Amino acid sequence: MGEFDLIERFFKRPARQADVGIGDDCAIWTPQPGHQLAISADMLVEGRHFLSTVDPVRLGHKSLAVNLSDLAACGATPLVFLLSLALPRADEDWLAGFSEGLFQLADAHGCELIGGDTTQGPLNIAITVMGEVPCAQAVLRSGARAGDDLYVSGHLGDARLALEAFRGNISLPQSVFNAARLRMEMPEPRVVLGQSLRGIATAMADISDGLLGDLGHILKASQVGAEIDLPAMADLMAASAQWNCPKNLASICMLNGGDDYELVFTAPAAARASVLAAAAHVNTRVTRIGQITTTLGLVLRDENGLPVQHQHRSFDHFA
Amino acid sequence: MGEFDLIERFFKRPARQADVGIGDDCAIWTPQPGHQLAISADMLVEGRHFLSTVDPVRLGHKSLAVNLSDLAACGATPLVFLLSLALPRADEDWLAGFSEGLFQLADAHGCELIGGDTTQGPLNIAITVMGEVPCAQAVLRSGARAGDDLYVSGHLGDARLALEAFRGNISLPQSVFNAARLRMEMPEPRVVLGQSLRGIATAMADISDGLLGDLGHILKASQVGAEIDLPAMADLMAASAQWNCPKNLASICMLNGGDDYELVFTAPAAARASVLAAAAHVNTRVTRIGQITTTLGLVLRDENGLPVQHQHRSFDHFA
Repeated sequence: MGEFDLIERFFKRPARQADVGIGDDCAIWTPQPGHQLAISADMLVEGRHFLSTVDPVRLGHKSLAVNLSDLAACGATPLVFLLSLALPRADEDWLAGFSEGLFQLADAHGCELIGGDTTQGPLNIAITVMGEVPCAQAVLRSGARAGDDLYVSGHLGDARLALEAFRGNISLPQSVFNAARLRMEMPEPRVVLGQSLRGIATAMADISDGLLGDLGHILKASQVGAEIDLPAMADLMAASAQWNCPKNLASICMLNGGDDYELVFTAPAAARASVLAAAAHVNTRVTRIGQITTTLGLVLRDENGLPVQHQHRSFDHFA
Repeated sequence: MGEFDLIERFFKRPARQADVGIGDDCAIWTPQPGHQLAISADMLVEGRHFLSTVDPVRLGHKSLAVNLSDLAACGATPLVFLLSLALPRADEDWLAGFSEGLFQLADAHGCELIGGDTTQGPLNIAITVMGEVPCAQAVLRSGARAGDDLYVSGHLGDARLALEAFRGNISLPQSVFNAARLRMEMPEPRVVLGQSLRGIATAMADISDGLLGDLGHILKASQVGAEIDLPAMADLMAASAQWNCPKNLASICMLNGGDDYELVFTAPAAARASVLAAAAHVNTRVTRIGQITTTLGLVLRDENGLPVQHQHRSFDHFA
């Protein structure tokens, strides 16, 4: 199977949104007037972002999911994406699985593959995704204000829990491991929630490198601080309902664990009802875990309101 | 040097075209109304697209050049790009050189880096570039008509000649090798020529996989054939002015050699003066090398007009 057969067989589908899709030097596409484009690129490398043994269907899903999650964090509506793929060899089974997982998620979000590249090389998946927001409605990292509530969506820490199990650092009951592994391998980008929070959230980011790290980006961009109320996070890890996780491990998973692809966001205290209504409308849990402060820095408080020491360190590929 | 320092130090510059540039979950950018976007992605892998010994300045140039070349082939004006980079380690000298070459070419074309990703992994450079064309003016591969003239820009085959020297298959005088190597390592994308041919050229592609292969894409998309007049190509290789290249090797370099990033295009015979005027206006050589035919397939003709057998095979990463 040659390069062009590979594209034709696994990736080329009739253009819907694109004026010209896969098969020319460029894709040609006409964005909708009155909107801004939100654009993000992520690169996934074997051994760093996924294990070599991962089911290719799940990997196809995750490759696009991490990109859609960036659109979600800006409140953008996904539209089109490009896929550049380096493969050690043209393995038909792998390609069938990968493209299946990729297109399942793409179709669920109406996001069309309009171009890309394929080459031989160490496995590397680079996706660029584009979405739209009505002009001036993108939710940025820089909009948090002192007094805003601090929220996270969904559950946190399960992806890291699975990683710890993969690393042999802990042993989990099979059902707990399976559920945590699914969270790590098939994260659900919070695209609909992100859109529903436009005009309500003041700042937003997705949690790819860990809550403290990604919240840190918001604090830095907004030039504010934050306090996190740790008891509010007590049942944020989904596994905690089924398994009695050592407290220190749960804390590391929820605060430092990456790969959850939930949203961390801020909103004025006066908008609390709007936040809950928006979340309920899209059937997604959100939890208020603290507030934004004028004092720079991040303070974690225990059940008595006392500050807790915590090693604040997010994932860094070159640290 | 951590991941965020690396971005800050080598890649982040003040946003000009972007509403929000590097540093948020997404770049936010507002395209100009009345235009279509032309979008392309290319991935470069060490050992396949470049040698590990290449000067990082030249590699930075080439990484963007191959993408700009795709915009050129559609007649599009470059606007913005995203860079995803997997690096074995954060080597400051390498990064300084790479970003220098990258930004020199980007600045020359007014193309702004608005986002991307960095990660650790086997060296891999994935760029997505976006440009614009006035609505319905993109030059596609599918517009060639029987009777059209067939042209190529600039010189052909020198990049392949350098590769043959690197492989030890031939020995070149130093000055010839240096010039050919420059063509291989720092191709000049024909962006201005591509734009000047809008409304004149009926079909266009860039020559990345070899003339016969890339012309083949035009013929397939346009459902036509072509005849190439080999004597018209006699001095297309720049090296041929300085060095007496064996005829068979020159033929392989010009017809099958990739990596030249010249344009192959078609235009009605009645537009011949317009083509030459457009090319002269942007100070770029174009050579008419044949014509488009109704009969499918590609025929090469010698100085007596007789068909010549030639192995028609373009580069395929998985063949």
